This record gives sequence, structure tokens and C-alpha cells, in this order.
Amino acid sequence: MSSLSIRTSRGTYEVLVGAGFLAKEISAQTAVIVDPAVRLTTPGRTPVIAFEAHEGVKTLAGVERVLISMHEAGVRRGSSLGAVGGGVIQDVATLASSIYMRGINWTYAPTTMMAMLDSCIGGKSSINVAGIKNLVGNIYPPERVIVDVSVAQSLPIEARIAGYAEAAKICFAGGSASFDQFLALAPTAAQFASDTHMEESILLTKHVLKVKQWFIETDEFDRQERLILNFGHTFAHALESALDFALPHGVAVAIGMAAAIRYNDPRTSASRALDDYVAGMARQLPGDFSGRLAHPDWERFQRALESDKKGSAAYLRFVLAAQDGSLSLQERDRSRTTIEDATAAARQALEDFTRRVGEQT
Amino acid sequence: MSSLSIRTSRGTYEVLVGAGFLAKEISAQTAVIVDPAVRLTTPGRTPVIAFEAHEGVKTLAGVERVLISMHEAGVRRGSSLGAVGGGVIQDVATLASSIYMRGINWTYAPTTMMAMLDSCIGGKSSINVAGIKNLVGNIYPPERVIVDVSVAQSLPIEARIAGYAEAAKICFAGGSASFDQFLALAPTAAQFASDTHMEESILLTKHVLKVKQWFIETDEFDRQERLILNFGHTFAHALESALDFALPHGVAVAIGMAAAIRYNDPRTSASRALDDYVAGMARQLPGDFSGRLAHPDWERFQRALESDKKGSAAYLRFVLAAQDGSLSLQERDRSRTTIEDATAAARQALEDFTRRVGEQT
Repeated sequence: MSSLSIRTSRGTYEVLVGAGFLAKEISAQTAVIVDPAVRLTTPGRTPVIAFEAHEGVKTLAGVERVLISMHEAGVRRGSSLGAVGGGVIQDVATLASSIYMRGINWTYAPTTMMAMLDSCIGGKSSINVAGIKNLVGNIYPPERVIVDVSVAQSLPIEARIAGYAEAAKICFAGGSASFDQFLALAPTAAQFASDTHMEESILLTKHVLKVKQWFIETDEFDRQERLILNFGHTFAHALESALDFALPHGVAVAIGMAAAIRYNDPRTSASRALDDYVAGMARQLPGDFSGRLAHPDWERFQRALESDKKGSAAYLRFVLAAQDGSLSLQERDRSRTTIEDATAAARQALEDFTRRVGEQT
Repeated sequence: MSSLSIRTSRGTYEVLVGAGFLAKEISAQTAVIVDPAVRLTTPGRTPVIAFEAHEGVKTLAGVERVLISMHEAGVRRGSSLGAVGGGVIQDVATLASSIYMRGINWTYAPTTMMAMLDSCIGGKSSINVAGIKNLVGNIYPPERVIVDVSVAQSLPIEARIAGYAEAAKICFAGGSASFDQFLALAPTAAQFASDTHMEESILLTKHVLKVKQWFIETDEFDRQERLILNFGHTFAHALESALDFALPHGVAVAIGMAAAIRYNDPRTSASRALDDYVAGMARQLPGDFSGRLAHPDWERFQRALESDKKGSAAYLRFVLAAQDGSLSLQERDRSRTTIEDATAAARQALEDFTRRVGEQT
């Protein structure tokens, strides 16, 4: 089992990466909030707070439900709460732990690939209020993060691909050495956490989190360095809109990165390697996945692009690769040309991706 | 206008003490949450979020209502929220500001005597969940505290007395020099913020907050030094219970301090001066106030005393004065004698106080 220590302005927390140790770790908690979708091996006598996680309960009412359950489960000032699940569980547990009796310790065990390979560290909670997405939230790091890669064994392939896309993005943003190492370590998404690739899966996870660690420690509050982790995301968000949110976010990020590469075509070996990697991810998806990519609404794409939060009145902002392989936040004037070029790049990336879905190699 | 700078683990904030400057300060805020019970001079075009403050809305639903109003009022990441009111407004605004868009600046203007002379600094939010009092909360200091003593002009005498009781307690806990200075500065509660005593009221307020400042800076998280600010409170809480919460908390604190003095009778000049001061507060109350002190349930008093949160399985804990005038947290075994002695002291203090209510000097 390996571990990382993440420094934050509120102290340091440990990230343990391994396989098969989740149940034991969780049984040391006072109570544990678990998404019933996660097949958690029984955590002994630890009281379980079942919380069916979805966007609709990422609300203050959802947080309140958890707070009441924590009280009923005997959580007190010196207690520690366990949280086992994906992003919504992390959001709700972060806020609940931060305000329960003015703040208690908590331990987070991510169970989605996106959470394991990316969002389990540097997390900020995001809670919807009155239908306004992510209006409230805060920063309250867990005491420990338990990344048990074996939990990924039951995940469907598109959820795995989604996590790999964010992981590839992080390592690409970390520079060519970190991306080369990612490619060298990466078993395919289908192999991740299989009995024969457990060791590589652990090494890969640790590598990705170590690269992300640099970003979150250098720029805890998302002011500069960390912003380039939005690579692919301006395109991805607009594509999700154009495809009516029918695809996992991470898959949209994969296509979004391919679009960003096509948009300003840096023709570096790293860009080509990333583009090839995205194509390889498409091939791992089942053939019928292409149905979810079939009817993009390009007007909706353009409206989403124009309302991107990163932009200003005069400019749209994209994270783009330069000739030297580095990523940076770049401004483009809000002209018809910018919009048309971006749309053409996204259209090309989506077509390329769709063509490769389910393709035999 | 005078100012204090309070240091906390999350940075420093300013406390401005003066008269007649609230409206101007508030009009600089993006929006302001105000208890309609407060007669706030119009804050120009600043959007006002009316929030009728009482214990029943000190809930997450109440906080959510404020969050939605903040969004409607145009509060954004760089905005500052004003909050004008007593403890409940402070509680709700603390939590709302701390999580709105992951935390925005806020400015607090206390409008009760308790808040002006005590709780406006060192504040921690307390929110009820599912009827469990103060189950959640956090620490999120305002950017600025605006203490405009002229706001107190409209307050009824018992609310003034309540504030003075906490102020006397803080200065007594601060040592004989600080208590002497309190007595020298203090206009009577009835005179506080009157046109002829505005300057003394400002000096008094600043003195009390300066004494409290030492406690909260020395012990931000209530671990040691700050605990002695609970002087009188073990008795006060049990008395509130015995009198079915018919009296303001601060008045119960006044009687509670007199009870603590009677309980271990330190016979110091400071203790006598405090006891005289409490008697003087009773005299300032209107004659009919004694009706609210008339039917104590001493069995309920004893049950409340026995379940006091500061105690352990073996001991009850009181903050008591020693022969040298200093206050300390002292343990008494949970014997019948302890309970009977404490009840006798409280009974005596309540009788002495009641006899003096409305007494002409």
C-alpha cells in the first residue's frame, strides 16, 4: 500500500492507494455514509447511513438528512465519519462533516474512476440550491482518503473510460514526462483493477494522483496553475449540452481534448499521443455507445460555448496546448470566426471519436 | 469612531465602535440581511433581505432561504453581505456567507445589547437541525463588525440589562482592574446610547470588547481561558429551566453570577462589587418583571443542573471565584450535598434579586 501526503492550508491529509483494504479501514469509523449503488463489503458493526446519491439530492435538504442520520448513528465531536461513493457522496459528506458540531474528522473512499483518479483529492464541495447548480459549497479536506482500486472491478466500461479521460488530461497537463509515464503504466480501462493488473492499477492511480497533487498544492484555490486542468472542458461542456447530457462527463472531456487539439493544432508529439489515446478510448467503448453521440445540436453547442463561465464580455477563454507542449489559458475574441472554428474542431473531434467507437483494432 | 483588530486563525477583522454610522456602512454592501424588528435607517439602494429572526428559523431551511435571496439580490463571488440584527441573524449570516459560492466577505452589525457587548466578536454559528439545538455550525469571522451603539436607543430595559449582565461578567472575568474600569465607565443600562451618554456608551462598549478580545485571541477554540466566560452560566441555565424560560438569558446570567458568589462566597471586594452591581440591575427593572421570577420549579432546576454539559460522570463543573478574585473551572462531586448547596445558593440569589426588582433607590 502506498501513500501520498497532501498539504493544504487547513493541514495535511493522507491518501492511501491499494487494493482490498476498504472494509477494514471503514470499520474504524464511527459511522459510514454509503451510496447503496456501491457494493460495500460489510463494515462490521459500523452504523451505515445509506444515501442514494444523485444530482437531485446534492442539496441542503440532502445534507440535513445526513446530519440527522449522523446524530442518530451516535456521531459526536470526537467521532470520524466515513464516506464511500462518488462525487455526490463526497460533496454531501464534505459539507456535513464541516458543520456537524462545528466540524468533525472524516475519511473518504472514492468508488468511481473519476473520483479515484481525480476528484478524491483537492476536493471542494458543491451543493445545489433552489435548482441553481453548485451555488454553495466549501473546502474541508478529509483526514484520510482511501483509494481501494479493487472497488472499480464492478464498474461499466464507459464509467472507466470517463475516469481515464480525466487521468490522461491531468498527466498531459503535467508535462510530457508525466504523460509518457501515464501511457507506460496504463493498462486499458477494461483491465483496470482486474485480478491480473491490480499492481499496475495501483501504480497508475498513484502516478495520476501525484501529478494532480502538484497542481492542488501549488494552487489550492484555483487561481492560476490549476486552471489548466480545465483543458478540454470548454469544448466538453458545450458538447454535453449539444448531446443533451447523454454521455458521461469524462467521455465528453476525452472528445473535448481532441477538439482542443484540432482547434489550434499544435502538432507536437505529445498532442498526437493524446489524440491517439483518445481514439483508443473510443475503440474500447461498446458499439452501441455511438448512438449516444449521434444527434448533436450544433446551435445548442454554440450557445453553450458563448455562455462559458471562463469567458469575459470581450473574450472566450480556452485552455490550449502551445508548440512547446505546455498548456495555457488563451483568449479568443468573441467573433463569428472563433465560434465557427471552435464548432468545426468539435464536430471533427466528435466524428473521429464516433467512427472509432467499437472499432476492432 | 474607535476600532479594534481581532486576530483569528483565519485572518484579522476590524471592529468599529461608534454612533450613527451604520446606514452609511451598510450602504456599501452588495445586499443586507436585516431583522425587520430592527428599525434600520434606509440603506440607500442596497437590496434588503428581510429575515424575521427567531429560534424557529435558525435552521438549514432558514439558511437556504437566505442563500436564495442572496442570489436574487445579485450577490456574487466578490460581493460582500451585510447582516444587521441579533444572535440569530449572526448565526444564519455566518453559515450562509461561509458556503455561498464557497465563501464571501460579510460585515456584521449587532443590534441587541448582548450582541454589541459580547457575541459580536469571537462568534461561531449555531444552527438547529431536526429540533436538536445547535447541532451544526462553524467558525467564519466577518470582514468587519460595525457596532453602532445608537441602535440600542429603541431597546427595552430588560434587553439592556441582559447585555449589561454579560458585559459585567466579561469584565469581572478579566480581573479586578478591568471590572473597576467597567464600573467607572458604565452609565446605567437605561442611559446607554441616550443622547447625553453616547460618548460613555462608546467607551464602555469598546472597553468590554477589548477585554473579551483577550479571551478569544488567547483561546479561539474554547479550550481553556475562554471557558471561564461561562461564569454564572451553570446556575443561569438551570434557572432558565426552573423559570420555564420566561426571562431573558442575560438576566438569568446576572442572577446566576449572584448564585455563584453565594455558592462559594469568596468575600473579595470584587465579588461584593459584582453582587452590588447585580442588585443595581434588579432595581432598574420595572416592578412587574418580578412576576417572571415568581414560580421557580426547584426540581426542574436540579435536573437541569445534573445534566449540565460541562460535567462528567463523577463531577459537576462550575466556574467559581477564588479568594484572590480569579475565576477558575472547579469540580464538585455529584453528591446530594453539592446539589442542595447549589440550589440553596440559587434560591437565595433569586430571592435577593426579586426583592430588588423595581426597588426605589
